[in-house]
Amino acid sequence: MKVAIDAMGGDYAPEKIVQGVELARDQYPDLRFILFGKESKIKAFLKNGERITIVHTDSEIAMGDEPVRAVRQKKTSSLVLAAQAVKDGKADALFSAGNTGALLAASLFIIGRIKGVDRPGMTTTLPALAGPEDSFTMLDVGANAESKVKNMHQFAILGNFYSANVMGVTNPRIALLNNGTEEDKGDPLHKETYQILSDDTHLNFVGNIESRELLNGKADVVVTDGFTGNAVLKNTEGTALSMLKLLKHTILDSGVQGKLGGLLLKPAFKQVQNKMDYSKHGGAVLLGVKAPVVKAHGSSNEIQVYHALRQLRSMVAANLTKNLADYFATRPKE
Amino acid sequence: MKVAIDAMGGDYAPEKIVQGVELARDQYPDLRFILFGKESKIKAFLKNGERITIVHTDSEIAMGDEPVRAVRQKKTSSLVLAAQAVKDGKADALFSAGNTGALLAASLFIIGRIKGVDRPGMTTTLPALAGPEDSFTMLDVGANAESKVKNMHQFAILGNFYSANVMGVTNPRIALLNNGTEEDKGDPLHKETYQILSDDTHLNFVGNIESRELLNGKADVVVTDGFTGNAVLKNTEGTALSMLKLLKHTILDSGVQGKLGGLLLKPAFKQVQNKMDYSKHGGAVLLGVKAPVVKAHGSSNEIQVYHALRQLRSMVAANLTKNLADYFATRPKE
Repeated sequence: MKVAIDAMGGDYAPEKIVQGVELARDQYPDLRFILFGKESKIKAFLKNGERITIVHTDSEIAMGDEPVRAVRQKKTSSLVLAAQAVKDGKADALFSAGNTGALLAASLFIIGRIKGVDRPGMTTTLPALAGPEDSFTMLDVGANAESKVKNMHQFAILGNFYSANVMGVTNPRIALLNNGTEEDKGDPLHKETYQILSDDTHLNFVGNIESRELLNGKADVVVTDGFTGNAVLKNTEGTALSMLKLLKHTILDSGVQGKLGGLLLKPAFKQVQNKMDYSKHGGAVLLGVKAPVVKAHGSSNEIQVYHALRQLRSMVAANLTKNLADYFATRPKE
Repeated sequence: MKVAIDAMGGDYAPEKIVQGVELARDQYPDLRFILFGKESKIKAFLKNGERITIVHTDSEIAMGDEPVRAVRQKKTSSLVLAAQAVKDGKADALFSAGNTGALLAASLFIIGRIKGVDRPGMTTTLPALAGPEDSFTMLDVGANAESKVKNMHQFAILGNFYSANVMGVTNPRIALLNNGTEEDKGDPLHKETYQILSDDTHLNFVGNIESRELLNGKADVVVTDGFTGNAVLKNTEGTALSMLKLLKHTILDSGVQGKLGGLLLKPAFKQVQNKMDYSKHGGAVLLGVKAPVVKAHGSSNEIQVYHALRQLRSMVAANLTKNLADYFATRPKE
């Protein structure tokens, strides 16, 4: 299988992108890559060209570019060319660590939506600190600023497939992020979504979940509108980071006793950090487009790029987008 | 000044409520209290009846009661009687640690809204781990499942008064919780709110804030719709709690070295916990009703009840609701 890589997207591109690609190439003999970007810069970091093709371009989309305009105007940018390669069947999947909005726009305009999916959902994997699995899937975390009931329903179906086929969860527990656990909670969007999810016999819907319980492993798929999902995802990251920082500063400021304690607890802290680090599950997946698309964090290092590519490989191997397309093609209209 | 107390609301009522009232009474000679609830139960915990009146009632609203119905039907419940005392001018402020929805309903139906405020906002104080102040104010965190632009604007005005008059912040920095910092971010509600807040020359509006930055002290008042605010507040609490629990378990599981490290770091952990503990700023305030109303957490102990009463005292002393009413009375119509 072949992955199209936007080699110029991300804070440490192309260096960390190239290194991550090489890690994945060395690990998985079935993977081939097409890297789009400045050939000289890519080659400066490439150790070994095996199963790696470079397509040169001087154009790239910057982090600050207005996404839709950039995708429409920069037709030879590394991102647009990579998306075009997927569209043309020259690659099976798309990777970028660059401008999220531009990746969204390129995926929608060039690769296109699966028929029956009105709005793809940005999907992320977060740690479950309790419960039967060590992680869970949440969508939409920000592909859409507004969501309708039918979008929410589709997010649930997309998440269900992803959890079952890529994360390997049997009969995933689907929950709706809401401001209370009772079924009549929330605004009309969430009340109606609750009913639709309850009525869908293909889904193992377990009811509402509050954001307080998010990390406690009570659901395998958390369905949310893009605005709330984005706020909650960033809040989880921000709170965890703020707490670790606060803890670190407090320890550094607490004299010899604190420093010694910190030293002794280094392995424990490392363990906590590992458990909270969800980058090992890959990047954010844009579910609902015609090919697997993964967005790695802009600040990704080579390991995070590697995990995102491993994730793309699982999605291609599970035939995820084909299965989703088949499901939506045979599903009764809403 | 006199505070009406729902002595039967809360997981540890009336014991912790009575103890908290006595702490506040001993600290502040200007405070008087009317406690509504079962006299025999209240008296069982009351050490000293100074400046405390008990109004006996056998009826109370349970945590699981449907709020609006309970308030309408249980007319002699401790909560409804306490709200009625405020309405009748027999008390200046209302305190409860019971059913939040019922407190909301009692405040709206019995005490009533300030003229010009369409929807009161539930307001909470959270820790600021960086920046010039040690805390910030956020609203609405869940009084409303849906909010309109004019509600959001009113939340900003209410929060601004609270921050300036009760938290003592000079020229509070007002920010809008949104899914990006640029002014065109968000759904129509958030885009329009951005414009309204920018145009209001009475507000020191500093732009959008992302939930990732919430605890980093970049704003003194964070304005949000009730649905997102509720999700983000619960997420902050949940993530912080989950992390502390994870850390604790990891330390306990990490042998002699870990346990020794944990012991040495006990003061540092305590310091972190103190910094994250925002109950010292009191409970959640329902801003926009005709008298100060505070909701303490259901699980409040006597210290938390004390802090909530201290907060009510500051609100009465600052003449907050009168100032708000004057402001809204003279403000041009939207």
